[in-house]
Amino acid sequence: VSNSRHFNVAIAGATGAVGAEFLKVLADRKFPIANLKLLASARSAGKTLMFDGKPYTVEELTEHSFQDVDIALFSAGGSQSKKYADAAVRAGAVVVDNSSAFRMDPRHPLVVPEVNPEDIGTHQGIIANPNCSTIIMLMAVYPLTKLGRIKRIVVSTYQAASGAGAAGMDELVEQTREYLAEKSLTKKVFPHQYAFNLFSHNSPVTENGYNEEEMKMMKETRKILHDDQIGVTATCVRVPVLRAHSEAINIEFEGARPSLEAIRDALAAFPGVQVRDDRAANHFPMPIEVSDNYDCFVGRIRNDLSNERAVDLFVAGDQVLKGAALNAVQIAEVLIEKFMPAKK
Amino acid sequence: VSNSRHFNVAIAGATGAVGAEFLKVLADRKFPIANLKLLASARSAGKTLMFDGKPYTVEELTEHSFQDVDIALFSAGGSQSKKYADAAVRAGAVVVDNSSAFRMDPRHPLVVPEVNPEDIGTHQGIIANPNCSTIIMLMAVYPLTKLGRIKRIVVSTYQAASGAGAAGMDELVEQTREYLAEKSLTKKVFPHQYAFNLFSHNSPVTENGYNEEEMKMMKETRKILHDDQIGVTATCVRVPVLRAHSEAINIEFEGARPSLEAIRDALAAFPGVQVRDDRAANHFPMPIEVSDNYDCFVGRIRNDLSNERAVDLFVAGDQVLKGAALNAVQIAEVLIEKFMPAKK
Repeated sequence: VSNSRHFNVAIAGATGAVGAEFLKVLADRKFPIANLKLLASARSAGKTLMFDGKPYTVEELTEHSFQDVDIALFSAGGSQSKKYADAAVRAGAVVVDNSSAFRMDPRHPLVVPEVNPEDIGTHQGIIANPNCSTIIMLMAVYPLTKLGRIKRIVVSTYQAASGAGAAGMDELVEQTREYLAEKSLTKKVFPHQYAFNLFSHNSPVTENGYNEEEMKMMKETRKILHDDQIGVTATCVRVPVLRAHSEAINIEFEGARPSLEAIRDALAAFPGVQVRDDRAANHFPMPIEVSDNYDCFVGRIRNDLSNERAVDLFVAGDQVLKGAALNAVQIAEVLIEKFMPAKK
Repeated sequence: VSNSRHFNVAIAGATGAVGAEFLKVLADRKFPIANLKLLASARSAGKTLMFDGKPYTVEELTEHSFQDVDIALFSAGGSQSKKYADAAVRAGAVVVDNSSAFRMDPRHPLVVPEVNPEDIGTHQGIIANPNCSTIIMLMAVYPLTKLGRIKRIVVSTYQAASGAGAAGMDELVEQTREYLAEKSLTKKVFPHQYAFNLFSHNSPVTENGYNEEEMKMMKETRKILHDDQIGVTATCVRVPVLRAHSEAINIEFEGARPSLEAIRDALAAFPGVQVRDDRAANHFPMPIEVSDNYDCFVGRIRNDLSNERAVDLFVAGDQVLKGAALNAVQIAEVLIEKFMPAKK
């Protein structure tokens, strides 16, 4: 990122779990910000948030919020994105949107910067950030596409409360306290008991029996990889973990499978991935260790005994960071470095 | 079970989590017991346990414990089984063993009573109870073998603390209390933090990268189904749930896959299985609902979009009951009903 150019940045949804992470990541990565605007619903307007040691007052998100904004990071939910992203684009901003609102729209690129950064250049004002489970899966799967064509992926997720925002995490903690105190359990965010339980992902189930989260993992993978043939069958499950998603992934190659050594090397060399595969110590990727980490951890790398063209592995990634805020900021970094005309 | 015949029953490991469940299941199912002997380590000898409303004193498990015993239910760990099962057999008892000690020994049948009850008749004094994850998987998979030959299973488990006994469950609860109180975490049973975390199953990892639990799921499935060709690739994971295991299962048929209607019907008709597949209400099998239940719950039944010969489903079963004590008692029931000569 050039130090000579600075950008006016707005964050829509600044008071949410991902919003808080946007602020940390932008500061930590020294994103070249000229002016920062924090936007949220009327309810949160007037609150003070800290950025890089300085206080900022949250303003109400409206159609008029984007005057002079260069980059707008949206994480205020799909309905807010649909309502305000166009206004941001009309005002001249490029929107990086964390919701599902624009992901499958062929006009808008869907980007994991380590995978398809070149797609950022095709944007028409909006760039979509993929679903968190899709991003974390592709961080483990994409390096393997360099070793051989992948035919099919069978993935089971172990998803954290953070996927439902700060309120989701609070509900898990509060319910667990209530459970241990033998009190009745408060259910507001999730439809089922979450403390010491797990349940099928709480997105609506579609006609074909897959829920929307699972369909996203299939459709978004095809779009990001530019591969309409790759098969993905996903089972998405919420487990009582706070903020990192894990996924057990079976990967079937079209032809002969690469050696485990080649796979380990490809993963270790890939930016944003760390191999955690200590068989002797039985130490593999875990949510608590990957939480607050920018990288995804991959381990359990082994040859599938049931299919000579397949391998198994296990990935964990911070849902709020690589699954959301970090990936969006990385998109903005590539955008300003490669695809934004010099200005001012 | 004939009411005219009653049997002398011993429980080795009576004070453990599975032992406690043996007592409940035997009483609940009115197993025809003449005399009951409760056995455990010297440390637990002298304790009093209740059975069917009456107190019993725990005796020390020794080579001389099995005089006049007809049926010995073992759940005291593999080393105790290896040490004392032969003594029980020599004394004339039939051993139903819950450990992994004899499971893969070709002399000893390995039985899920709904699947291969006829194998009980081949016993030479010892009948092995399969691994909990294997039993729960086969309750969902076996009914489908009637509809078409299964080529391969990809399974990811969500395993509860109870697999490590009462001490495992206590550790999860205590660690969670400590976590919420911001105290340092006590780790005795499990190698990693368990509260709000998950980790690869804590059995040793073998040469090929699979851990022992995963290898059991493959090998035991082949033995129970009498099918050396069926492929199983398992990823076994501990999640912070107390006593029921869940599993996401992808099932690939050799030929055309059966219709979902045929699959649902086969599952619904199978003893020990309940279909819980309410797409509209997003209500599928959950650990808390299957806990303390004899049946396994199966749902998320859908056609795999990535493979026209495969289907996906999700099963949950009580690890202590169908995964251990209930299955062993069911073996004993078939044994006395079908394969034990009339006596006394």
